[in-house]
Amino acid sequence: MSVDLQNLAVLKPEQPICIFDSGIGGLTVVRKLRELLPNEELIYFGDTARVPYGTKSQLTVRRYAAEDTRLLLKYQPKMIIVACNTVSATALDVVEHESQGKPVLGVLKAGSALAAKETRCGHIGVIGTNATIASNAYSLEIYTIDPSLEVYSKACPLFVPLAEEGYINHEASKLIAQDYLLELMAHNIDTLVLGCTHYPILKAMLSEVVGESIKIIDSAEAVAMEVQRVLSEQSLLCQEVHNFPPKVLVSDLPQKFRTKFELFLGIELPEVELVEV
Amino acid sequence: MSVDLQNLAVLKPEQPICIFDSGIGGLTVVRKLRELLPNEELIYFGDTARVPYGTKSQLTVRRYAAEDTRLLLKYQPKMIIVACNTVSATALDVVEHESQGKPVLGVLKAGSALAAKETRCGHIGVIGTNATIASNAYSLEIYTIDPSLEVYSKACPLFVPLAEEGYINHEASKLIAQDYLLELMAHNIDTLVLGCTHYPILKAMLSEVVGESIKIIDSAEAVAMEVQRVLSEQSLLCQEVHNFPPKVLVSDLPQKFRTKFELFLGIELPEVELVEV
Repeated sequence: MSVDLQNLAVLKPEQPICIFDSGIGGLTVVRKLRELLPNEELIYFGDTARVPYGTKSQLTVRRYAAEDTRLLLKYQPKMIIVACNTVSATALDVVEHESQGKPVLGVLKAGSALAAKETRCGHIGVIGTNATIASNAYSLEIYTIDPSLEVYSKACPLFVPLAEEGYINHEASKLIAQDYLLELMAHNIDTLVLGCTHYPILKAMLSEVVGESIKIIDSAEAVAMEVQRVLSEQSLLCQEVHNFPPKVLVSDLPQKFRTKFELFLGIELPEVELVEV
Repeated sequence: MSVDLQNLAVLKPEQPICIFDSGIGGLTVVRKLRELLPNEELIYFGDTARVPYGTKSQLTVRRYAAEDTRLLLKYQPKMIIVACNTVSATALDVVEHESQGKPVLGVLKAGSALAAKETRCGHIGVIGTNATIASNAYSLEIYTIDPSLEVYSKACPLFVPLAEEGYINHEASKLIAQDYLLELMAHNIDTLVLGCTHYPILKAMLSEVVGESIKIIDSAEAVAMEVQRVLSEQSLLCQEVHNFPPKVLVSDLPQKFRTKFELFLGIELPEVELVEV
């Protein structure tokens, strides 16, 4: 996390928390934040006009990350959360650079820290998009926390479309999950990090495929807990009791977006605003 | 097809044919064009930084279509081919408007015409992306050709990622195909239009699922035949014998692009140039 203390001094608890992702997957982070911090005003941006990021190059992801951050700064956030694992893995420095000293938290560091804490045997599996896994960022982060840990990674590019299409417990999804995960399981992992905010939607099915002995770490949940810790430490938690619905901004409103958004957000979709990046 | 005769007069056979698609799927059109018209210089643009288009709104697809056309005009084409079914279905008028009077051909009209010609019982199935199917453009085009034909459509959004990930003959792909296609088959179709340039990659598997009695129409092949007919009619076929490799332009170079591109193009990948849109 990058925190500029001089700038932090002027931040106020009543300012919103801004969250962004390449598309709708990051709504799983909004969902966890609402459960944990119901007083906070949440503003979410999903770059649905350019989704997905996970299949694209680092160069393009970094450009998009800078544009997304600049968009959210207009809302005067007290904190920016990178709900996109691909951005967390390949462009967190870009977000920190653009964020004018506001605290920035990414799903990757939070998920890594929780996995390092939870593993007993020291063998951790990480799954994510092509871009996230190719960046090796989860492995590097976990090794930095504890060099004795062994990390095994696997890109699972079909999980995003399967989750978005609601193939949540379909036989085809199980077959594809077996294809992807058997290789990781052969390394006797006891912890599996869901390194993509879409994957929590598939958690029950994945749990069935890997078995109950493997603990599944949800990065969305991990980052929500980290947000609570950091805001509390900086006395930036909002104390006023209100229950704002989250504000949702998107760069495109695709077909059937309402059903898809609600699947990830877990509540009825509030007002959605179309913005340009 | 829109042809401005005044502008057509200045077109020359040695000018290139420009083709564009949201990503790499349109390379199946390049492949068919190379087989049919080996003398032609082909310039392909795949908007890999913003792929896919098929899950996005009409508004966004129309904006992208205009930008893609303007990019290709710089190469002085004698014809522009819209290899993207989503653009053909929802934004062909935008391409025609931007193309400065050059002939424009889209996969949708060519595929529709071929299906109308091939069906015997008059029941035609059409599959494509969410955006293509929601537009109803295939049905409208086929009804315009022959109002007695019955068209049954089904969006198959998982076929694009399955094709891109090489899940070409996987059991999971067959299960998903059965999910999508049983409904169409219940209408006793005898012809099935592949309304997405990714789908020809899955043709053998789809043929197995629907059975041999249903004829599969490949829009990529249909548009290549239409290009030959129109260029010949306008005396714009290139007569010089050369065998240029196609020129491939992209807006992003993702991980493992070489393997994926070659799967669709069917030959070793030529020079690829990164461009900005």
